[in-house]
Amino acid sequence: MLLTDLLGTRLPVIQAPMAGSQGSRLALAVCEAGGLGSLPTAALGPERLEEELKALSRVSTGPWNVNAFCHTPPEQDAEQLRAWHKALAPYYAEFGIDADAVPSGAGREPFSHALADVLEPFRPPVVSFHFGLPAPDLLKRVKSWGSVVLSSATTLEEARWLEEKGVDAVIAQGLEAGGHRGMFLTHDLTTQMGTLALVPQLVAALRVPVIAAGGIADAGSAAAARALGADGVQAGTAFLYCPEADTSAVHRQALQSDAARHTALTTIFSGRPARGIVNRLMRELGTLPPEAPAFPLATAAVAPLRAAAESRDSGDFSPLWAGQNTSNCRQQPAADVIRTLAEPF
Amino acid sequence: MLLTDLLGTRLPVIQAPMAGSQGSRLALAVCEAGGLGSLPTAALGPERLEEELKALSRVSTGPWNVNAFCHTPPEQDAEQLRAWHKALAPYYAEFGIDADAVPSGAGREPFSHALADVLEPFRPPVVSFHFGLPAPDLLKRVKSWGSVVLSSATTLEEARWLEEKGVDAVIAQGLEAGGHRGMFLTHDLTTQMGTLALVPQLVAALRVPVIAAGGIADAGSAAAARALGADGVQAGTAFLYCPEADTSAVHRQALQSDAARHTALTTIFSGRPARGIVNRLMRELGTLPPEAPAFPLATAAVAPLRAAAESRDSGDFSPLWAGQNTSNCRQQPAADVIRTLAEPF
Repeated sequence: MLLTDLLGTRLPVIQAPMAGSQGSRLALAVCEAGGLGSLPTAALGPERLEEELKALSRVSTGPWNVNAFCHTPPEQDAEQLRAWHKALAPYYAEFGIDADAVPSGAGREPFSHALADVLEPFRPPVVSFHFGLPAPDLLKRVKSWGSVVLSSATTLEEARWLEEKGVDAVIAQGLEAGGHRGMFLTHDLTTQMGTLALVPQLVAALRVPVIAAGGIADAGSAAAARALGADGVQAGTAFLYCPEADTSAVHRQALQSDAARHTALTTIFSGRPARGIVNRLMRELGTLPPEAPAFPLATAAVAPLRAAAESRDSGDFSPLWAGQNTSNCRQQPAADVIRTLAEPF
Repeated sequence: MLLTDLLGTRLPVIQAPMAGSQGSRLALAVCEAGGLGSLPTAALGPERLEEELKALSRVSTGPWNVNAFCHTPPEQDAEQLRAWHKALAPYYAEFGIDADAVPSGAGREPFSHALADVLEPFRPPVVSFHFGLPAPDLLKRVKSWGSVVLSSATTLEEARWLEEKGVDAVIAQGLEAGGHRGMFLTHDLTTQMGTLALVPQLVAALRVPVIAAGGIADAGSAAAARALGADGVQAGTAFLYCPEADTSAVHRQALQSDAARHTALTTIFSGRPARGIVNRLMRELGTLPPEAPAFPLATAAVAPLRAAAESRDSGDFSPLWAGQNTSNCRQQPAADVIRTLAEPF
């Protein structure tokens, strides 16, 4: 089945959901250009989400996608949190932040029936998940709306698991990808594969369409994905500098600097490995510090440092999510990125 | 300049040098099929090397390549070696090996004037280096023979460095590649990029031809490399199961098993990160144990364990080098692999 037939889009190009860096504005621009625009829900409360869904569902040019995380929230571990606060203590002191007043909230909510209640009236044409899939009853509920269901796989095992559970297409997330690794059957980072190795293995093993993600930034890399047998591509980083994205000033600055040539997987900003441009906090704490609590509990303790640093125009404490190829990050409309990525298809 | 014009080959496909798994037999088969066959010198003494060079230089169908490492040998660090032997002690006990009798030799020699003395009479058409380049006088000597000089880059910085020092083409070694990472300007593994992200950045920045390596295993991945702008490809893993390779029985067995789906970078077998199929020693010691001494000093202490295990048909202690896509490892002549990889060019 053609990916465009499955999704109902004109072009087999998906804009990757990027919580914190975009909302309906970018998604709409992508949809209008013939791609699949995505709305990340992880960082929105129910009211903002409803507003964004209203904006998105007004689109008349084609389908759109809503993305949700589906992790199992961890138990709060007081000792681990203490260790994390201790690791960050020198920075609290540097910025004059009262360490005792730093909150320890969760930050990101997994998909739930409460979230499904908000989505249901809008019957999203496509729903994509990250970190596996929600519980069977929740997945059934989403499918009952007629939504096409996507999720990311980082290994052959994950791809087979997703197909078995009934996803309509699999996003093959290669190691080059920016943001959170979608890995969910293992925590072992050595299992993670480059896009060029991952995509053909999934294409050979699956019956459902495979969407290549990770390092897809321009016409050449999209053509490479096609040569690997992918039915379409998903790109994120290439949209971060678009005027329709809500990427912060420090993030945009980093994307355009030489620093963008060095990204790393880090657990510092959320507790799960995610790829971002290496900055001061990653350099000084190490990218995968043992003190970082489980996802998403690492977030809250870093948030006040991030806010304080950003108010001084510094991205030293911000998650500067980016993939391993930022060379096409420039001031261009999202429609141009979509057109470029669709060329080879 | 076309890569085939530079190399003098019929096809822009290079068989990656794989010390320990092949000699002149595989290289000759590749040359006869129109590709560039490579002879790894790292594991050969001067006499074996001369024999192999005689065999290779008899080839009348085209040029051939000799590969050498050019690391700086480390100082022996007695304390580090003690820690390494201690980490391996339980395994020595398991196999009844006298730990005090285990040698602590170097294992692999870097390129030197002595090695150049052996090469010079044969005037190798192509010489490729790993871990950077030899000292300027040595490089000059190699170039004086008219040899085309190649080396591997794993980052944009390394690629620029190599071009500046005068290499004729750069091998872009993506993270998917099996065997030793060619990294030489940094030890930081987070700098290492997937092939899909690395190749286009090198193609955009360099004037010399770029050869894609890492995850190149079949016609689709070779076509992807071409789409990324590569002038040619280098593949290793795809040749490991060929009858002309000298791949060990335990290695061949691992390549054909489900275990081959999980490779990792490990310093266990040499001291430098190299990608191999995860086996018992890697699982139990961790893939990057702090006790492993600097390259190539880790090798000697593991060698007797490897020999003992292999004599029992076990690859638990062997370096099972492989890239992240072993799906094309099968009983086929090297000529078939070359033909397949050359298809898209």
